[in-house]
Amino acid sequence: MPKLTFSAKAHSENPIKTIVQARNFKMIVDEPANLGGTDDGANPVEYLLAALAGCLNVVGHVVAKELGMELKGIEISLEGDLNPAKFMGQSDAERAGYQELRVAIKPDTNADQATLEKWLTAVETRCPVSDNIGNATPVKIELG
Amino acid sequence: MPKLTFSAKAHSENPIKTIVQARNFKMIVDEPANLGGTDDGANPVEYLLAALAGCLNVVGHVVAKELGMELKGIEISLEGDLNPAKFMGQSDAERAGYQELRVAIKPDTNADQATLEKWLTAVETRCPVSDNIGNATPVKIELG
Repeated sequence: MPKLTFSAKAHSENPIKTIVQARNFKMIVDEPANLGGTDDGANPVEYLLAALAGCLNVVGHVVAKELGMELKGIEISLEGDLNPAKFMGQSDAERAGYQELRVAIKPDTNADQATLEKWLTAVETRCPVSDNIGNATPVKIELG
Repeated sequence: MPKLTFSAKAHSENPIKTIVQARNFKMIVDEPANLGGTDDGANPVEYLLAALAGCLNVVGHVVAKELGMELKGIEISLEGDLNPAKFMGQSDAERAGYQELRVAIKPDTNADQATLEKWLTAVETRCPVSDNIGNATPVKIELG
Protein backbone atom coordinates (compact mmCIF):
# COMPACT_ATOMS: atom_id res chain seq x y z
CA MET A 1 0.00 0.00 0.00
CA PRO A 2 1.22 3.54 -0.62
CA LYS A 3 2.38 5.39 2.45
CA LEU A 4 0.16 8.07 3.91
CA THR A 5 1.68 11.38 4.97
CA PHE A 6 0.14 13.50 7.72
CA SER A 7 1.26 16.97 8.65
CA ALA A 8 0.49 19.95 10.82
CA LYS A 9 1.66 23.50 11.30
CA ALA A 10 1.73 25.23 14.65
CA HIS A 11 2.64 28.53 16.22
CA SER A 12 2.91 29.84 19.73
CA GLU A 13 0.15 32.22 20.67
CA ASN A 14 2.08 32.74 23.88
CA PRO A 15 4.82 30.78 25.71
CA ILE A 16 2.31 28.16 26.86
CA LYS A 17 -0.56 28.21 24.34
CA THR A 18 -0.12 26.69 20.89
CA ILE A 19 -2.39 26.88 17.87
CA VAL A 20 -2.10 23.81 15.65
CA GLN A 21 -3.59 23.46 12.17
CA ALA A 22 -3.97 20.04 10.54
CA ARG A 23 -5.89 20.20 7.26
CA ASN A 24 -9.06 22.17 8.09
CA PHE A 25 -8.83 21.53 11.83
CA LYS A 26 -7.58 23.97 14.42
CA MET A 27 -6.44 22.51 17.72
CA ILE A 28 -5.73 24.67 20.75
CA VAL A 29 -3.15 23.29 23.16
CA ASP A 30 -2.70 25.07 26.48
CA GLU A 31 -2.05 24.29 30.13
CA PRO A 32 -4.17 24.79 33.24
CA ALA A 33 -3.42 27.77 35.46
CA ASN A 34 -1.41 25.68 37.95
CA LEU A 35 0.98 24.80 35.11
CA GLY A 36 1.27 28.41 33.95
CA GLY A 37 -1.31 28.48 31.17
CA THR A 38 -4.61 30.17 30.46
CA ASP A 39 -6.50 26.84 30.23
CA ASP A 40 -7.90 27.45 26.76
CA GLY A 41 -7.44 23.84 25.68
CA ALA A 42 -6.28 20.42 26.76
CA ASN A 43 -2.56 20.18 27.41
CA PRO A 44 0.02 18.33 25.27
CA VAL A 45 -0.03 15.10 27.24
CA GLU A 46 -3.84 15.09 27.24
CA TYR A 47 -3.71 15.41 23.43
CA LEU A 48 -1.52 12.33 23.46
CA LEU A 49 -4.28 10.45 25.33
CA ALA A 50 -6.86 11.68 22.79
CA ALA A 51 -4.70 10.42 19.94
CA LEU A 52 -4.45 7.00 21.53
CA ALA A 53 -8.19 6.81 22.32
CA GLY A 54 -9.19 7.75 18.78
CA CYS A 55 -6.81 5.21 17.33
CA LEU A 56 -8.03 2.38 19.56
CA ASN A 57 -11.62 3.06 18.52
CA VAL A 58 -10.90 2.90 14.80
CA VAL A 59 -8.66 -0.16 15.00
CA GLY A 60 -11.02 -1.83 17.46
CA HIS A 61 -13.79 -1.68 14.90
CA VAL A 62 -11.57 -2.78 12.00
CA VAL A 63 -10.40 -5.83 13.95
CA ALA A 64 -13.89 -6.69 15.25
CA LYS A 65 -15.17 -6.73 11.70
CA GLU A 66 -12.40 -9.12 10.66
CA LEU A 67 -13.20 -11.44 13.57
CA GLY A 68 -16.93 -11.34 12.89
CA MET A 69 -17.30 -9.90 16.37
CA GLU A 70 -20.35 -7.75 17.01
CA LEU A 71 -19.25 -4.40 18.44
CA LYS A 72 -21.86 -1.80 19.35
CA GLY A 73 -19.46 0.68 20.84
CA ILE A 74 -16.32 1.19 22.90
CA GLU A 75 -15.58 3.13 26.08
CA ILE A 76 -11.99 3.92 26.93
CA SER A 77 -10.36 5.31 30.07
CA LEU A 78 -6.75 6.43 29.88
CA GLU A 79 -4.28 7.77 32.41
CA GLY A 80 -0.60 8.23 33.00
CA ASP A 81 1.80 9.79 35.46
CA LEU A 82 4.83 11.90 34.77
CA ASN A 83 7.39 13.61 36.89
CA PRO A 84 7.76 17.26 35.81
CA ALA A 85 11.27 17.54 37.27
CA LYS A 86 13.12 16.84 34.01
CA PHE A 87 10.87 19.05 31.95
CA MET A 88 11.34 21.86 34.49
CA GLY A 89 15.13 21.39 34.48
CA GLN A 90 15.32 20.31 38.13
CA SER A 91 16.41 16.66 37.83
CA ASP A 92 17.30 14.06 35.23
CA ALA A 93 16.53 11.16 37.57
CA GLU A 94 13.29 10.21 35.80
CA ARG A 95 12.21 10.41 32.19
CA ALA A 96 10.39 13.52 30.94
CA GLY A 97 7.21 11.88 29.66
CA TYR A 98 4.62 9.45 30.91
CA GLN A 99 6.27 6.57 32.73
CA GLU A 100 3.56 4.27 31.46
CA LEU A 101 0.05 4.58 30.10
CA ARG A 102 -2.80 2.66 31.68
CA VAL A 103 -5.77 2.08 29.42
CA ALA A 104 -9.06 0.32 30.17
CA ILE A 105 -11.05 -0.49 27.06
CA LYS A 106 -14.66 -1.63 27.39
CA PRO A 107 -16.20 -3.03 24.21
CA ASP A 108 -19.99 -3.30 24.07
CA THR A 109 -20.15 -6.85 22.74
CA ASN A 110 -21.38 -10.35 23.46
CA ALA A 111 -18.11 -11.92 22.27
CA ASP A 112 -16.62 -14.69 24.41
CA GLN A 113 -13.44 -14.23 26.41
CA ALA A 114 -11.17 -16.00 23.91
CA THR A 115 -12.37 -13.76 21.07
CA LEU A 116 -12.01 -10.69 23.25
CA GLU A 117 -8.43 -11.52 24.11
CA LYS A 118 -7.57 -12.14 20.48
CA TRP A 119 -9.25 -8.86 19.60
CA LEU A 120 -7.36 -6.90 22.24
CA THR A 121 -3.96 -8.25 21.22
CA ALA A 122 -4.57 -7.39 17.57
CA VAL A 123 -5.85 -3.90 18.41
CA GLU A 124 -2.85 -3.09 20.55
CA THR A 125 -0.39 -4.34 17.94
CA ARG A 126 -2.00 -2.69 14.94
CA CYS A 127 -2.95 0.72 16.36
CA PRO A 128 -0.55 3.28 14.86
CA VAL A 129 -0.58 5.50 17.94
CA SER A 130 0.02 2.69 20.44
CA ASP A 131 2.89 1.58 18.19
CA ASN A 132 4.37 5.08 18.19
CA ILE A 133 4.11 5.38 21.97
CA GLY A 134 4.93 1.80 22.87
CA ASN A 135 7.97 1.52 20.61
CA ALA A 136 10.72 4.02 19.87
CA THR A 137 10.02 6.30 16.92
CA PRO A 138 12.72 8.61 15.53
CA VAL A 139 11.81 12.25 16.16
CA LYS A 140 14.03 14.38 13.93
CA ILE A 141 13.86 17.98 15.03
CA GLU A 142 15.73 20.60 13.03
CA LEU A 143 15.93 24.35 13.19
CA GLY A 144 13.66 25.67 10.44
CA MET B 1 8.67 16.81 42.71
CA PRO B 2 5.33 15.01 43.08
CA LYS B 3 4.18 13.14 40.01
CA LEU B 4 1.39 14.61 37.93
CA THR B 5 -1.42 12.36 36.72
CA PHE B 6 -3.34 13.11 33.55
CA SER B 7 -6.41 11.24 32.37
CA ALA B 8 -9.14 11.16 29.75
CA LYS B 9 -12.32 9.28 29.04
CA ALA B 10 -13.51 8.46 25.54
CA HIS B 11 -16.33 6.75 23.74
CA SER B 12 -17.04 5.81 20.16
CA GLU B 13 -19.72 7.93 18.56
CA ASN B 14 -19.41 5.57 15.62
CA PRO B 15 -16.76 3.08 14.45
CA ILE B 16 -14.48 5.89 13.29
CA LYS B 17 -15.40 8.96 15.34
CA THR B 18 -14.34 9.24 18.97
CA ILE B 19 -15.36 11.78 21.59
CA VAL B 20 -12.63 12.35 24.17
CA GLN B 21 -13.06 14.28 27.40
CA ALA B 22 -10.04 15.51 29.36
CA ARG B 23 -11.00 17.75 32.30
CA ASN B 24 -13.37 20.33 30.78
CA PHE B 25 -12.16 19.80 27.22
CA LYS B 26 -13.94 17.79 24.58
CA MET B 27 -11.84 16.58 21.67
CA ILE B 28 -13.38 15.12 18.53
CA VAL B 29 -11.23 12.57 16.72
CA ASP B 30 -12.40 11.39 13.31
CA GLU B 31 -11.01 10.48 9.90
CA PRO B 32 -11.41 12.08 6.48
CA ALA B 33 -13.86 10.49 4.06
CA ASN B 34 -11.11 8.64 2.16
CA LEU B 35 -10.25 6.84 5.38
CA GLY B 36 -13.87 5.99 6.13
CA GLY B 37 -14.82 8.81 8.48
CA THR B 38 -17.13 11.80 8.51
CA ASP B 39 -14.26 14.30 8.84
CA ASP B 40 -15.60 15.97 11.97
CA GLY B 41 -12.17 16.32 13.54
CA ALA B 42 -8.48 15.73 13.07
CA ASN B 43 -7.47 12.08 13.00
CA PRO B 44 -5.54 10.20 15.70
CA VAL B 45 -2.13 10.64 14.15
CA GLU B 46 -2.77 14.35 13.61
CA TYR B 47 -3.62 14.62 17.32
CA LEU B 48 -0.22 13.09 17.97
CA LEU B 49 1.39 15.91 15.96
CA ALA B 50 -0.63 18.48 17.93
CA ALA B 51 0.56 16.95 21.21
CA LEU B 52 4.17 17.20 20.09
CA ALA B 53 3.80 20.77 18.79
CA GLY B 54 2.20 21.98 22.01
CA CYS B 55 4.89 20.34 24.10
CA LEU B 56 7.75 21.82 22.06
CA ASN B 57 6.31 25.30 22.47
CA VAL B 58 6.06 25.06 26.26
CA VAL B 59 9.46 23.46 26.75
CA GLY B 60 11.01 25.78 24.17
CA HIS B 61 10.03 28.75 26.27
CA VAL B 62 11.08 27.16 29.57
CA VAL B 63 14.55 26.38 28.19
CA ALA B 64 14.92 29.78 26.51
CA LYS B 65 14.24 31.47 29.82
CA GLU B 66 16.91 29.36 31.54
CA LEU B 67 19.45 30.24 28.83
CA GLY B 68 18.58 33.93 28.94
CA MET B 69 17.64 33.60 25.28
CA GLU B 70 15.11 36.06 23.96
CA LEU B 71 12.25 34.18 22.33
CA LYS B 72 9.39 36.11 20.76
CA GLY B 73 7.59 33.10 19.35
CA ILE B 74 7.94 29.69 17.72
CA GLU B 75 6.65 28.24 14.47
CA ILE B 76 6.63 24.48 14.06
CA SER B 77 6.02 22.24 11.04
CA LEU B 78 5.52 18.53 11.63
CA GLU B 79 5.02 15.57 9.35
CA GLY B 80 5.30 11.84 9.24
CA ASP B 81 4.56 8.89 6.98
CA LEU B 82 2.94 5.62 7.84
CA ASN B 83 2.04 2.53 5.92
CA PRO B 84 -1.61 1.61 6.60
CA ALA B 85 -1.05 -2.05 5.63
CA LYS B 86 -0.50 -3.30 9.18
CA PHE B 87 -3.36 -1.29 10.62
CA MET B 88 -5.64 -2.62 7.87
CA GLY B 89 -4.51 -6.21 8.46
CA GLN B 90 -2.89 -6.60 5.05
CA SER B 91 0.80 -6.93 5.94
CA ASP B 92 3.11 -6.97 8.94
CA ALA B 93 6.14 -5.95 6.87
CA GLU B 94 6.24 -2.42 8.25
CA ARG B 95 5.33 -0.96 11.63
CA ALA B 96 1.81 0.34 12.22
CA GLY B 97 2.64 3.90 13.20
CA TYR B 98 4.73 6.75 11.91
CA GLN B 99 8.10 5.49 10.71
CA GLU B 100 9.68 8.74 11.83
CA LEU B 101 8.56 12.25 12.62
CA ARG B 102 10.16 15.21 10.88
CA VAL B 103 9.89 18.48 12.74
CA ALA B 104 11.12 21.93 11.74
CA ILE B 105 11.11 24.41 14.58
CA LYS B 106 11.64 28.09 13.88
CA PRO B 107 12.27 30.25 16.92
CA ASP B 108 11.86 34.01 16.56
CA THR B 109 15.08 35.02 18.27
CA ASN B 110 18.37 36.80 17.81
CA ALA B 111 20.30 34.05 19.61
CA ASP B 112 23.58 32.89 18.08
CA GLN B 113 23.98 29.45 16.52
CA ALA B 114 25.73 27.90 19.52
CA THR B 115 22.95 28.97 21.86
CA LEU B 116 20.33 27.77 19.42
CA GLU B 117 21.88 24.33 19.19
CA LYS B 118 22.11 24.07 22.97
CA TRP B 119 18.50 25.15 23.17
CA LEU B 120 17.30 22.63 20.62
CA THR B 121 19.06 19.70 22.28
CA ALA B 122 17.60 20.57 25.67
CA VAL B 123 14.10 21.04 24.26
CA GLU B 124 14.15 17.70 22.49
CA THR B 125 15.41 15.87 25.56
CA ARG B 126 13.09 17.49 28.07
CA CYS B 127 9.80 17.57 26.14
CA PRO B 128 7.52 14.92 27.66
CA VAL B 129 5.79 14.16 24.36
CA SER B 130 9.00 13.81 22.33
CA ASP B 131 10.24 11.49 25.09
CA ASN B 132 7.08 9.37 24.89
CA ILE B 133 7.31 9.11 21.10
CA GLY B 134 11.07 8.90 20.77
CA ASN B 135 11.55 6.27 23.47
CA ALA B 136 9.49 3.19 24.28
CA THR B 137 6.71 3.79 26.81
CA PRO B 138 4.75 0.88 28.29
CA VAL B 139 1.13 0.99 27.11
CA LYS B 140 -0.87 -1.32 29.37
CA ILE B 141 -4.25 -1.98 27.82
CA GLU B 142 -6.76 -4.07 29.73
CA LEU B 143 -10.35 -5.00 29.13
CA GLY B 144 -12.44 -2.74 31.37
